[in-house]
Amino acid sequence: MVLPTPAIDIDRLRRLLDGVNTFGFNAVTGGYNRVGYSDDDMAVRDWFAQQMGKDGLTVSRDPVNNLFGRYGPGEGACVMAGSHLDTVPEGGAFDGSLGACIALECVRAMKDAGVEPKTAVVVAATAEEEGRFGGMLGSQTIAGAVTREWIELASDSDGVALTDAMRAQGLDPFGALDAAWTPGSIEAFLELHIEQGPVLERASIAVGIVNGISGVCNLQVRFEGVANHSGTTPMDMRSDAFAGLAEFACTIPSTIDRFGTDESRITIGKVDIHPNFAHTIPGAADFSIIIRDTSEHVMRHMRASIMLDIEAAARAHGLSHTIEEKSWLSPVTLDSGIHAVLAEEAKKLGIDALDMPSGAGHDAQTMQSFCPSGLVFIPSRNGISHAPEEWSDWADIEKGAQLMLNALVRLSCA
Amino acid sequence: MVLPTPAIDIDRLRRLLDGVNTFGFNAVTGGYNRVGYSDDDMAVRDWFAQQMGKDGLTVSRDPVNNLFGRYGPGEGACVMAGSHLDTVPEGGAFDGSLGACIALECVRAMKDAGVEPKTAVVVAATAEEEGRFGGMLGSQTIAGAVTREWIELASDSDGVALTDAMRAQGLDPFGALDAAWTPGSIEAFLELHIEQGPVLERASIAVGIVNGISGVCNLQVRFEGVANHSGTTPMDMRSDAFAGLAEFACTIPSTIDRFGTDESRITIGKVDIHPNFAHTIPGAADFSIIIRDTSEHVMRHMRASIMLDIEAAARAHGLSHTIEEKSWLSPVTLDSGIHAVLAEEAKKLGIDALDMPSGAGHDAQTMQSFCPSGLVFIPSRNGISHAPEEWSDWADIEKGAQLMLNALVRLSCA
Repeated sequence: MVLPTPAIDIDRLRRLLDGVNTFGFNAVTGGYNRVGYSDDDMAVRDWFAQQMGKDGLTVSRDPVNNLFGRYGPGEGACVMAGSHLDTVPEGGAFDGSLGACIALECVRAMKDAGVEPKTAVVVAATAEEEGRFGGMLGSQTIAGAVTREWIELASDSDGVALTDAMRAQGLDPFGALDAAWTPGSIEAFLELHIEQGPVLERASIAVGIVNGISGVCNLQVRFEGVANHSGTTPMDMRSDAFAGLAEFACTIPSTIDRFGTDESRITIGKVDIHPNFAHTIPGAADFSIIIRDTSEHVMRHMRASIMLDIEAAARAHGLSHTIEEKSWLSPVTLDSGIHAVLAEEAKKLGIDALDMPSGAGHDAQTMQSFCPSGLVFIPSRNGISHAPEEWSDWADIEKGAQLMLNALVRLSCA
Repeated sequence: MVLPTPAIDIDRLRRLLDGVNTFGFNAVTGGYNRVGYSDDDMAVRDWFAQQMGKDGLTVSRDPVNNLFGRYGPGEGACVMAGSHLDTVPEGGAFDGSLGACIALECVRAMKDAGVEPKTAVVVAATAEEEGRFGGMLGSQTIAGAVTREWIELASDSDGVALTDAMRAQGLDPFGALDAAWTPGSIEAFLELHIEQGPVLERASIAVGIVNGISGVCNLQVRFEGVANHSGTTPMDMRSDAFAGLAEFACTIPSTIDRFGTDESRITIGKVDIHPNFAHTIPGAADFSIIIRDTSEHVMRHMRASIMLDIEAAARAHGLSHTIEEKSWLSPVTLDSGIHAVLAEEAKKLGIDALDMPSGAGHDAQTMQSFCPSGLVFIPSRNGISHAPEEWSDWADIEKGAQLMLNALVRLSCA
């Protein structure tokens, strides 16, 4: 008997995603609220575990609330696929959840087609990816990349400690330290995620295959000048902190031209000037600079250029300045073997796929430190994410899901 | 009998100013709080009226709380001298009060020297100059430059109506409409004020004789772009409202070079970007632009240049923009005859005086619309005003006060 080719059932996938999105929906704003370790984040996992159980998967949950559903051999290494179920506050319907749902749909499609993998497929619905507590606790726990000190110190932007938030849900925060998977137990990790940017949509390409994830350098800068009356202080006697900031900000394109790449992003997103009165020359300016690139070497050069431009702008305007490097996350290169598998399977399916980096962080980058990992993008309408307006077209989703399915079959049945 | 030359008693002046500054002093901050129509603003006027009464002046108060003390002939026109007793919140010890105190000290010195003026000298302690309600109600009332509509609509930044604030102190707000002085009843108005800027101090000159007051154009601008993820949005696909603002801000020096004068001031003092998160490209920026010059012609050219630069920056960054002109106050040229009297008297006293404009507004500019007016500046340490750190040296104050005295004697005794 010739078995049918496993195929994504797009309506079944859509119903599954709709089911997930009954949890944490705010009918007033249209936003989804399943912030890590909130009641709705806990509840959606119970429901998702039930769905996996109904499909006959062997379901388990680890101490940080990662959810696993195993299909195929009960022993031995696995191929893992999935993404996160938590959201940012007032987030969208697709970010994370779509990837977790596609992983389960892939297993359902394999079952329907009678595909019995040689290597188990594990559907993963990871915990706390959105960084309420400043990390990616779910995938870091799987990868063994979490420390006692971090767990003790982590807190959210309202000052709630991770330990308190987890204990309030009956979870043992330090359980994370014993929950890493055994080295070699995951042969590969595959994730599908919405792009959250405009590149695929503008290029009219349905699928992106991610080659790496940009590093992130987070600088916090303060310019200090002299607040003074805007009428009585001549232009050449000013120490105007905002004028210094503007002069610096205008050097950013030159830094990218000289040292950057097409993947470079430099952003001033947060600006607070003091005293912030129309008739007073700004005496101080606090601002953030976020530097990203897929090359650590490029990031270092851009940081050095920025440091000099800050120095020059401060000097030109008679300002003192401080620069605090709040964090430096190195870029991650995803596994070239998995990337090749995804590219080949896309080609076989006749799907035009773009080789691209990711400017945002994802579980796949954490998993890459533990096992070969791959990441598939599908387009985000207008590049919007982390908002109720987040949307991806189901025609694109179907292509991305089928690619995930074919890659999973290839990796688990070989 | 040869009468003594009238001379300022600097210690007596200092005691008078100290007396004024017992009202509204905040011992915690060191700031002075006699905001227009506050209890301390009312109380300081009772006290100042008492002092003038003790000196034998004929004291009167008008409906808006301007205080007058008349010395010399009870009938006929007068020469008026003075300044305001109200302060900004947490203001300094000299702004306004010093000028009111010097006017009274001048009369005291004239009395001591037996100088009996042919034209009465009126000491004025004006009301509500600091613009709690957006104007200069005291001097506008004297000059007949206030309307019923303005009184009905004026409110402070907390939304308190002028009418409510005045009635709470037992004052009739619409009394201002009948309180203008008769045309010709004031032959000249003289004011001494601290410079509130750094020019005299940097030039090491004790006295400034003001030739005019800068006009003020107040623009409120909004740039709108698209807020998006700072990692996923390539530089060339951004509509970054802050990048547009920075590019515009850097054109300001060129506008002044091309169209401005040494008296031009262009200031971006208030900036609010949205959503103001480090990892999000700014989707909108609201900012103020304050344009000042002593020439209306120059102001108009600079405004036109700024409008074009806003347009260009918006276009370069794919932003939409709105520009609201919140106010346009024309520059005022002070009376050249009074200016000449002050310059001549300074020369006779051997005081080096700087011919200069004022970048800030003062009662003298309102009075100029009613009668020939003059304004004398003395240095402000570090150019600081509207703050507890406001300070002027008593050696400079003495020179400025003596100049005021000699000019008053000349104008009232001729």
